[in-house]
Amino acid sequence: MAKMIKKRSKKSGFPPGSLVHIGERRVKTPKISILDYDETQFHEEKTQAIDECFVFKDKPTVTWTNIDGLHQTEMLEKLGDCYGFHPLVLEDILNTDQRPKMEDYGEYVYIVLRSLEYNHQKDEIESDQISIILGQNFVFSFQEKEGDTFDPLRERIRTGKGRIKKMGADYLAYTLMDSIVDNYFIILEKQGEKIELLEEQLVTSPTPETLQTIHDLKREMIFLRKAVWPLREVVGSLERGESSLVQASTRIYLRDLYDHIIQVIDNVETFRDMIAGILDIYLSSVSNRLNSVMKVLTIIATIFMPLTFLAGIYGMNFKYMPELEWRWGYPLIWLIMLGTGIFMLVYFKKKKWL
Amino acid sequence: MAKMIKKRSKKSGFPPGSLVHIGERRVKTPKISILDYDETQFHEEKTQAIDECFVFKDKPTVTWTNIDGLHQTEMLEKLGDCYGFHPLVLEDILNTDQRPKMEDYGEYVYIVLRSLEYNHQKDEIESDQISIILGQNFVFSFQEKEGDTFDPLRERIRTGKGRIKKMGADYLAYTLMDSIVDNYFIILEKQGEKIELLEEQLVTSPTPETLQTIHDLKREMIFLRKAVWPLREVVGSLERGESSLVQASTRIYLRDLYDHIIQVIDNVETFRDMIAGILDIYLSSVSNRLNSVMKVLTIIATIFMPLTFLAGIYGMNFKYMPELEWRWGYPLIWLIMLGTGIFMLVYFKKKKWL
Amino acid sequence: MAKMIKKRSKKSGFPPGSLVHIGERRVKTPKISILDYDETQFHEEKTQAIDECFVFKDKPTVTWTNIDGLHQTEMLEKLGDCYGFHPLVLEDILNTDQRPKMEDYGEYVYIVLRSLEYNHQKDEIESDQISIILGQNFVFSFQEKEGDTFDPLRERIRTGKGRIKKMGADYLAYTLMDSIVDNYFIILEKQGEKIELLEEQLVTSPTPETLQTIHDLKREMIFLRKAVWPLREVVGSLERGESSLVQASTRIYLRDLYDHIIQVIDNVETFRDMIAGILDIYLSSVSNRLNSVMKVLTIIATIFMPLTFLAGIYGMNFKYMPELEWRWGYPLIWLIMLGTGIFMLVYFKKKKWL
Amino acid sequence: MAKMIKKRSKKSGFPPGSLVHIGERRVKTPKISILDYDETQFHEEKTQAIDECFVFKDKPTVTWTNIDGLHQTEMLEKLGDCYGFHPLVLEDILNTDQRPKMEDYGEYVYIVLRSLEYNHQKDEIESDQISIILGQNFVFSFQEKEGDTFDPLRERIRTGKGRIKKMGADYLAYTLMDSIVDNYFIILEKQGEKIELLEEQLVTSPTPETLQTIHDLKREMIFLRKAVWPLREVVGSLERGESSLVQASTRIYLRDLYDHIIQVIDNVETFRDMIAGILDIYLSSVSNRLNSVMKVLTIIATIFMPLTFLAGIYGMNFKYMPELEWRWGYPLIWLIMLGTGIFMLVYFKKKKWL
Amino acid sequence: MAKMIKKRSKKSGFPPGSLVHIGERRVKTPKISILDYDETQFHEEKTQAIDECFVFKDKPTVTWTNIDGLHQTEMLEKLGDCYGFHPLVLEDILNTDQRPKMEDYGEYVYIVLRSLEYNHQKDEIESDQISIILGQNFVFSFQEKEGDTFDPLRERIRTGKGRIKKMGADYLAYTLMDSIVDNYFIILEKQGEKIELLEEQLVTSPTPETLQTIHDLKREMIFLRKAVWPLREVVGSLERGESSLVQASTRIYLRDLYDHIIQVIDNVETFRDMIAGILDIYLSSVSNRLNSVMKVLTIIATIFMPLTFLAGIYGMNFKYMPELEWRWGYPLIWLIMLGTGIFMLVYFKKKKWL
Repeated sequence: MAKMIKKRSKKSGFPPGSLVHIGERRVKTPKISILDYDETQFHEEKTQAIDECFVFKDKPTVTWTNIDGLHQTEMLEKLGDCYGFHPLVLEDILNTDQRPKMEDYGEYVYIVLRSLEYNHQKDEIESDQISIILGQNFVFSFQEKEGDTFDPLRERIRTGKGRIKKMGADYLAYTLMDSIVDNYFIILEKQGEKIELLEEQLVTSPTPETLQTIHDLKREMIFLRKAVWPLREVVGSLERGESSLVQASTRIYLRDLYDHIIQVIDNVETFRDMIAGILDIYLSSVSNRLNSVMKVLTIIATIFMPLTFLAGIYGMNFKYMPELEWRWGYPLIWLIMLGTGIFMLVYFKKKKWL
Repeated sequence: MAKMIKKRSKKSGFPPGSLVHIGERRVKTPKISILDYDETQFHEEKTQAIDECFVFKDKPTVTWTNIDGLHQTEMLEKLGDCYGFHPLVLEDILNTDQRPKMEDYGEYVYIVLRSLEYNHQKDEIESDQISIILGQNFVFSFQEKEGDTFDPLRERIRTGKGRIKKMGADYLAYTLMDSIVDNYFIILEKQGEKIELLEEQLVTSPTPETLQTIHDLKREMIFLRKAVWPLREVVGSLERGESSLVQASTRIYLRDLYDHIIQVIDNVETFRDMIAGILDIYLSSVSNRLNSVMKVLTIIATIFMPLTFLAGIYGMNFKYMPELEWRWGYPLIWLIMLGTGIFMLVYFKKKKWL
Repeated sequence: MAKMIKKRSKKSGFPPGSLVHIGERRVKTPKISILDYDETQFHEEKTQAIDECFVFKDKPTVTWTNIDGLHQTEMLEKLGDCYGFHPLVLEDILNTDQRPKMEDYGEYVYIVLRSLEYNHQKDEIESDQISIILGQNFVFSFQEKEGDTFDPLRERIRTGKGRIKKMGADYLAYTLMDSIVDNYFIILEKQGEKIELLEEQLVTSPTPETLQTIHDLKREMIFLRKAVWPLREVVGSLERGESSLVQASTRIYLRDLYDHIIQVIDNVETFRDMIAGILDIYLSSVSNRLNSVMKVLTIIATIFMPLTFLAGIYGMNFKYMPELEWRWGYPLIWLIMLGTGIFMLVYFKKKKWL
Repeated sequence: MAKMIKKRSKKSGFPPGSLVHIGERRVKTPKISILDYDETQFHEEKTQAIDECFVFKDKPTVTWTNIDGLHQTEMLEKLGDCYGFHPLVLEDILNTDQRPKMEDYGEYVYIVLRSLEYNHQKDEIESDQISIILGQNFVFSFQEKEGDTFDPLRERIRTGKGRIKKMGADYLAYTLMDSIVDNYFIILEKQGEKIELLEEQLVTSPTPETLQTIHDLKREMIFLRKAVWPLREVVGSLERGESSLVQASTRIYLRDLYDHIIQVIDNVETFRDMIAGILDIYLSSVSNRLNSVMKVLTIIATIFMPLTFLAGIYGMNFKYMPELEWRWGYPLIWLIMLGTGIFMLVYFKKKKWL
Repeated sequence: MAKMIKKRSKKSGFPPGSLVHIGERRVKTPKISILDYDETQFHEEKTQAIDECFVFKDKPTVTWTNIDGLHQTEMLEKLGDCYGFHPLVLEDILNTDQRPKMEDYGEYVYIVLRSLEYNHQKDEIESDQISIILGQNFVFSFQEKEGDTFDPLRERIRTGKGRIKKMGADYLAYTLMDSIVDNYFIILEKQGEKIELLEEQLVTSPTPETLQTIHDLKREMIFLRKAVWPLREVVGSLERGESSLVQASTRIYLRDLYDHIIQVIDNVETFRDMIAGILDIYLSSVSNRLNSVMKVLTIIATIFMPLTFLAGIYGMNFKYMPELEWRWGYPLIWLIMLGTGIFMLVYFKKKKWL
């Protein structure tokens, strides 16, 4: 799983607003993809030079610029100069351990959230910070590594499916967020399956590895929770229309998104409860197992200790031990021993120790 | 019990507002039942063609249309076109893993809640999502499978019992919700009985299965809680009269419903507390049991180990062991052994280990 | 203790506002007692016919009608018709598992709360639902069984002690509630004593029954909590003067009552904390006990196992075992065994296992 | 420690506003001390007759009357009559188990809070209820027993140190409260020391008494919490200037007091967290100890059981046992036994059981 | 780690506003450093006489005076007289166990917060209280000991890097707080590393020391939490512009700082969750270990007890024991014993005890 804490110490001592990328470099060269469209037009291009974006600045069409890879800080600086973004916004894009938040700068809105994807090869959740800048006629999206989260969305714009081409930049920003939240459901499904598997395993064959799995699930839930909880606030304040960039017609969709987020939170909390329950069951079944081992031990000790004692008695070398001379002494002692043993077994059966 | 997480992944990548049914198909063909009434008239029909509903659209009478079965998405689309429902509403009807919520679209109010029924055959709680659309003179209700929750209500409308025929569509929507919440009380009764049974069992004969039962009850409570908590908000906002579709005379009933929901929540929380207490008791009695097994083991070891040792001593083959030659050596050693054993028993009695 | 969940299922399917009594029938025939007074007059009568109350309806004097026994629903119906009470109010009076609440119907205020009394014979808390309807010049109080909670109050009205006869119906309703809350303090005192007893017992002689007592106390606290928490809200909204039936001069008394309720809640929470602490201590002392048993077992095994082994050695029948022939072999082996035993005892002493 | 619950039952059945003292009588005769001052004058007297206070009623100077001992209820009645205090105020002064609260009666403000002092002889916290009535030109303070909490304050007034003589009655009430809150810090210091001692002990030598100490600390924290939490609200509402008796210049001091209370609360919560942590550690170290005992037991059993078995084998009396005749049989068996023992010790070392 | 509770008792009995330093004296003589600048000028000096600050009082340039060492209370008194600071402010500067808070005195704002630094030599967190007084054209900062937290900031002012010289005193106060919060991230990084190390250790080799480390981490988190939580409120109220001393242009930076604090809080809570999880795992693995020891014990006892019993049987000295005379009796008994042993091993294998 992703590290919990990134190397903020790299930045310590710099003045506020300094552009230092604190994540890992995950792509070789930043990749820029530009989609420019309105209800009737559509234009797409891929480039590596940030300057090419600037031509779209004053066009009335909606321009979506997606940038994968953040380590070239000078690129961001240029962009910031051209569009007049506040240095703190640029700094936040580079600090890839942000808590989801929304900041309204009047002319534009800065949104940061966390995209989570399930990596099936490594069987772990991969996380990436997505920054979105929404302006009157543009949307910028920034991420550390290349992802395919937005591919179906691009396809929809290209083919003009859905109502996306008829709507403005605010609706585009909404669909970006919606795609990311949709992925959370897939993660939840995966986690749900793991939890159900775990519950079955608990009953049939708990192992010490079960504990590790419980612990891992718990950590992932903490992680998921950290990503989703603040998002509620972000979408909530967008939906309440605190920014003039969000039109009334888009708010109804944001309310829907808000509901989805609440649902994710609800499920995360439910899962946390369930995992806690599973841990209780696991610990208790470990206890039960110890109990059953102790019972076996007790039974053996209770049966054989007196018998061995009896054998010891008649192994003594006293000169005058009349029983030793008896003709039926040996069979008799066997009978006594068998009787004692059977009596004790019956007794334990009654005490429910067997 | 119902799955916690439904296959949302089916829907991933579709644009918002796409109609995809994510639940299981539980009835063969959707069944539509229409009740149209006012204080003086009453008309009822059953059909499978959604078009037949449309004739009631402009009649001033209250029309209640109930649809069982949601997998024919084109039916919903037709309905949405005719009544002008927002695509997101239709999408939500089909996403049968919604959190209870209420959305006011001005012309109509969309309410989604969860119906819970106790299936006595399978000894488990069955859950179904009920969507309600309340308009000026109509109520639509949607559910995945056929249920008999609303049968007494239908009967009341047919026979004209109670005040239902005198009131508007808002009162009808209220009675629908009321029927569902009434079922929660039946579930709570069932759970309450289980908890009382469990408490008795704990004292008389705890078994490892007890643990499984506790765990199952806990899960069901989590489930119930998830269904009821958000409902409070839903009914609360209806009661505060945020929608103009709800008349003042109905609000007093909604307040009553609100109180019922609070009562359900209260009981769910109480049950959770009680189940937690039962788990504590169970774990503690497992501990006590281990304790009592250990006591037996200790007593046996403490009594027989020294005795066996003594027997071992006089089983040694040393040439010069004067005791072995004594006339009363053998009876004497028996006396010593008996004395030691009795002394230890008395000692343990005093130490309260017996 | 009283059942947590009453048979609501009896009512399932009835239209809202139906009068069905869901509690147990606890008195044979309902008893009605009427007190009619103002500063100068006083009139008292006992009856079984509800019609006799109606004569007081339009008199300016304060009329307090107390009804014990609720199973004759037709009586309530008559009363409701005469005074114009809403059907939901009558329904709530009969549903004797209500959560404390206050409902303002303008002309009258409906208050429901829970009276708790300690039954010394059965050593358990008995609970009864008290419904109060406060009007301009009347107070109705309803309860399932006959209680003596209100006896001192009746006496005070008869003798004219205190300021009750000078004040209106709102002050009467306040004193009714005050009497009930005063009983909570008595319950708390009783519980406090039990907790202190439990704490002493824990130190001197914990038994498995202790666990049961802890569990019972916990349940009673859950029960008490359920009765008191919502009451805070009830009295709070009365005190804020949300109803015009409550005069300013009475509000100061309601504030005092409110403080009492807060104090009860405070104590309930404190007791819950203390009981949780006691459970911790109990479990820990069970653990300690297991520990001390294990220590004894270890010491016995550690001392006698090597000694028995040594005795076994010299019980072997090898032909050539020189020690067996030694003159002082036997005393020597005794010395060795004693030495080993003493050494081990000293060692354990040092290790603090003894 | 002080009892949690006082005998409220004494009062049950009395009308509201009855003067019954529910605490214990802690001083023989009530002691009254009067300090009358303004910026230029100072007058002090001690008396036992409440009437002597009344002469100061209409003087413009600030009069502080402190009364130790509350069992003479008629004294309070006289005072109430003279100053026009509400009967509920007098009742609250006598109910010495109040929750801290502030009540504004317009002409005067009634404040009740809890003074806590550490009794070094009994090593426990002693608690007393302090009631303060603040008027335009007077302050009354009531407590059950004689205390020296206010002595430094009296000295300050006598000598005219600080700004107290220049300020009004509200500042005096503030300094009274400040003295009490200052004492909380001393208690916290004491508790902090105990916790640190406990933490050291845990590491070096945990005993069963440790558990008792943890439990006691926990109880004291519950007690402290109960005294401080509601005080925040009291001082908060005074500071917000809800009463016209509090001047703006005094509010800045009340804000400071408010901060002190928050700090006390903060520390109480921190201590609670720490004590919970200590309990965890204690329980875990008990577990570890059991573990280490079990290891010793296992090792002994594992080593001696096979050896004793071997000795048993060669103690059998079969006629044909060739090994018994061997010249080096006896030394050989010793070698085999030693070898087995050493092998097992090495094995356990490797398994980290030693 | 720093003591949780400082010696407030030193101060008990003093009037409010008395200047008594309750911390430890950590520097010999207080050191005063003055930086005076505006966009064009820069002046720096170091001194030990507080009087030298006063010349800057009426200059329009921004003056930052940093004072290390607080035990010379008369110095503070002089400063307070000159600048007109309220005695409570001076008192708070000296009480170095304050909770972070912000107080607006109109002319100036008093801010107190806690600086945390990781001391790598002692492997512990060091804490110091930083008091900041922000006025129109000055900032005072006070700390108990010399620290290098502000060194990079001083360098930035000297070299004129960043926008600091262009902005006012409010921005300077912001950067002071920002430097302190930046340090929290470094502490979090360190803690994060410790937690990850702990998690690895848990799997490979848990020791009793692990428990101590968990406990220490938990304490440090409690400490960190106490420092950060109230800071949120402080910065939040500054950001909301409640003081007129904070300009709009600085608020955007304060919002950023606020976000950083939220992020720190978020991480602290996450760490607390993770540490709780680790403790669970640790306790459970101790349990598992006990379990595995018990299994070994059971197996040994189960195998050797019957075998030793058999050997005892044939060690008895009965005269008539036919088996003893058999030619193959001895090898036969060996076979029987081996068979029994192997059978039991197989049985345990099947029961998953091995």
